[in-house]
Amino acid sequence: MDDKSYHMTPEQFREEGKKVIDWIADYYENIEQFPVLSQVKPGEIKKSLPEEAPQKSESLDEMMHDIDEKIMPGITHWQSPNFYAYFPANTSFPAILGDLISSGLGVQGMIWATSPAATELETRVLDWLAEMMGMPEKFKSTSTGGGVIQDTASTSALTAIIAARERATKFKSNKKGIQQKLVAYISTQTHSSIEKAIKIAGIGKENLRLIDVDEKFALRSDILKKQIQQDKKEGFTPFFVCAAIGTTSSNAIDPLKEIGEICLQENCWLHVDAAMSGSAMVCPEFRFLQDGVEMADSYCFNPHKWLFTNFDCDVFWVANRVELINTFSILPEYLRNQATESGEVFDYRDWHIQLGRRFRSLKLWFVIRHYGVEGLQHHIRKHVEIARNFKTWVEESGDFEIFVEPPLNLVCFRHKAGNDFNMKLMNAVNETGKAYFTHTKLNGNVVLRMSIGQTNTEEKHVKKTWELILETAKNL
Amino acid sequence: MDDKSYHMTPEQFREEGKKVIDWIADYYENIEQFPVLSQVKPGEIKKSLPEEAPQKSESLDEMMHDIDEKIMPGITHWQSPNFYAYFPANTSFPAILGDLISSGLGVQGMIWATSPAATELETRVLDWLAEMMGMPEKFKSTSTGGGVIQDTASTSALTAIIAARERATKFKSNKKGIQQKLVAYISTQTHSSIEKAIKIAGIGKENLRLIDVDEKFALRSDILKKQIQQDKKEGFTPFFVCAAIGTTSSNAIDPLKEIGEICLQENCWLHVDAAMSGSAMVCPEFRFLQDGVEMADSYCFNPHKWLFTNFDCDVFWVANRVELINTFSILPEYLRNQATESGEVFDYRDWHIQLGRRFRSLKLWFVIRHYGVEGLQHHIRKHVEIARNFKTWVEESGDFEIFVEPPLNLVCFRHKAGNDFNMKLMNAVNETGKAYFTHTKLNGNVVLRMSIGQTNTEEKHVKKTWELILETAKNL
Repeated sequence: MDDKSYHMTPEQFREEGKKVIDWIADYYENIEQFPVLSQVKPGEIKKSLPEEAPQKSESLDEMMHDIDEKIMPGITHWQSPNFYAYFPANTSFPAILGDLISSGLGVQGMIWATSPAATELETRVLDWLAEMMGMPEKFKSTSTGGGVIQDTASTSALTAIIAARERATKFKSNKKGIQQKLVAYISTQTHSSIEKAIKIAGIGKENLRLIDVDEKFALRSDILKKQIQQDKKEGFTPFFVCAAIGTTSSNAIDPLKEIGEICLQENCWLHVDAAMSGSAMVCPEFRFLQDGVEMADSYCFNPHKWLFTNFDCDVFWVANRVELINTFSILPEYLRNQATESGEVFDYRDWHIQLGRRFRSLKLWFVIRHYGVEGLQHHIRKHVEIARNFKTWVEESGDFEIFVEPPLNLVCFRHKAGNDFNMKLMNAVNETGKAYFTHTKLNGNVVLRMSIGQTNTEEKHVKKTWELILETAKNL
Repeated sequence: MDDKSYHMTPEQFREEGKKVIDWIADYYENIEQFPVLSQVKPGEIKKSLPEEAPQKSESLDEMMHDIDEKIMPGITHWQSPNFYAYFPANTSFPAILGDLISSGLGVQGMIWATSPAATELETRVLDWLAEMMGMPEKFKSTSTGGGVIQDTASTSALTAIIAARERATKFKSNKKGIQQKLVAYISTQTHSSIEKAIKIAGIGKENLRLIDVDEKFALRSDILKKQIQQDKKEGFTPFFVCAAIGTTSSNAIDPLKEIGEICLQENCWLHVDAAMSGSAMVCPEFRFLQDGVEMADSYCFNPHKWLFTNFDCDVFWVANRVELINTFSILPEYLRNQATESGEVFDYRDWHIQLGRRFRSLKLWFVIRHYGVEGLQHHIRKHVEIARNFKTWVEESGDFEIFVEPPLNLVCFRHKAGNDFNMKLMNAVNETGKAYFTHTKLNGNVVLRMSIGQTNTEEKHVKKTWELILETAKNL
């Protein structure tokens, strides 16, 4: 048999891998020199790449050259300290190293037996996190619940909706398809992922009620209660409510305690989406924002947003794991094994949609251990403090105003000159490449979002960006 | 403001990162010394980890020490050349490096504007792959279709089912929920992920028809046709068929041409699941196995199985991207931008369930360029050749038999001494730690699966494992 091999040898990997490590370190040392928002036009990157795959092997040097020349101009630098758009999607060096080890080990944690450490480390680290964040005991694996890492908050929402659907229909939907008139509730401000998930789940957008919000853009629980009553009268089965601890537009905090009580009365599954702001719960002083969380059936937040752990890492906790497992469990012969049949282990494929799964808890474990609880608290607090200072600058400026009181690290502000001016201002600042932020609309008003949470953002960056905004506004 | 920082500096990352690179290289140099299947008992790993997160920062040396001492005993070594279980879940060094750069850049490719290169490289590389695999033109972005990287074949199946559901109901399910009696078709051998997806989609397991198979465990198209007719008579709407190019149990190849013609006549969405065997299509001589693929509406395969690209990397192609986008598109204000509104770009969040997405095409790009088309062909062919040799050894052994003719690299065989003996034999071999393989059941028979496709598996490994199987059988 032919012994020819195209594989890279471990020795080559040592050499090439160290070059890549240096490339990444160089990138972070120079990151502020790149325009934060990529300036390329549609199709430019694609055009620069060959139309066909190479027949022959190419060297890593050629690839790294193309990364620098062809890919980098098309990168929007989410890891720049001057990135204030959307919500952050953070990495940190310990997270990168944890993920590198995961790539190296290349294990598939679909069931316990296919790598016990991948399952058990995940369970343990999510119990750690629950404790660190003051979450209710029921979310821990040592109680009735437990946590699992999902890819995104969208997937967690879908997972929660399906489990809620099955609980409400006594698992009949899984068998016969949806036959009841199910109805779900969110606020007008809740993330679009819930609408998407409601569609995927076969429930239909028309059966998702958008509940009005108060002046702080938080769900009005009195209206929720009335709507549920009305729906019941009309023969619908209310089954699911999603409360946001921090909406995407303005970081509005839904009143969890009031919503939770309604859900208990009405037997609705309560899912809490704390995608970005959940990270703040490592600091006890912010936990009042989610007072009532003990009434939730499920909760998700993204360490890949504000807890310095690279994508994808969404943490999803449930209060009652049996409901979740009964919803998603499937056991074909080729996956049967002694450990599963003993019932002593978790098989995480039964906790989500996918079968295959990467060893994602490694990066989270590395982050928690590298920073320690106190390090994570320190950096979260620092971002909130910077946001508060930014708010003061806006208020003192005269031309700008704060649109809604920021509960944490997202500041919604605007120039007093109206919608068009604000859009122009934002685009002009973003085009300089020195900072990148995005907008939303609240009650018809264009509002600028200063989302302060990138791993390396310090006060000096925000100060400089604020000066750039002021100057750009003056010149418009 | 306090300037204290817990972040790892780029200089520390250079140093620590290189240690991790060496650790991975060492791992691959010594991988054959680890027991392939982890030998730990349930709970052992978890017990070895502290019950609470550390308050203070810990060093990377401490973490790497714990990886060696606490995590490694709980690893099942999917990257060992002696791993023959399930289907492979391969890495390769170029893939690891591409993924490392993705972690380093930390970009979020949810829409074109959030990193144009992440979208455009993905589109281009999946067009390359379509060409490399002789796929129909309609699957290319330059035609009516295009490709997108999903996490797993399970998610691709769900995505296809939802798009098919919407096409069949003229997008009414998304609006009003499922109101028609939809019905889907697979064979009795199709992967459990389809059943899971049918449940998630709100269609219900009872509306998934399991069509009988022939003596090669391939779907019988004559029965499919009859069942569709019958269902139509009973007022059902047939909407979806999944054909497997390689079932998980035995790598059975469904007759795509016959199924495709039925789907065209009956207006059913045809999804092809080629999760493992799709990789073989880079070699023209294997493409006859998917003759008829030009009739498919969607197709998925996993470079993270047999194309040396680490998890997660499932390629999902559609023939008509408009159907897919109309199914999944949602545009909240905070994601509005000029590029999206121009219609000149792809926003991949509209091609799948999740919103956020990692820059996954980098690793696939690195793999294709490192190996070149000829390198990939070489290693695929080598695995198939080894499988053919293994088959010969089994046939020549006397005590063992081939259970079903292997089309590619999965060999289904068994000892003639019956089910119990085969289970005992498998467990005994796996307990030695020298190799790891798994079983399935076909027509009530326990069948052993020799899945030959791990990146570094060579003939010598398979030969040695065969000798171990023979010897173990003799001693039982």
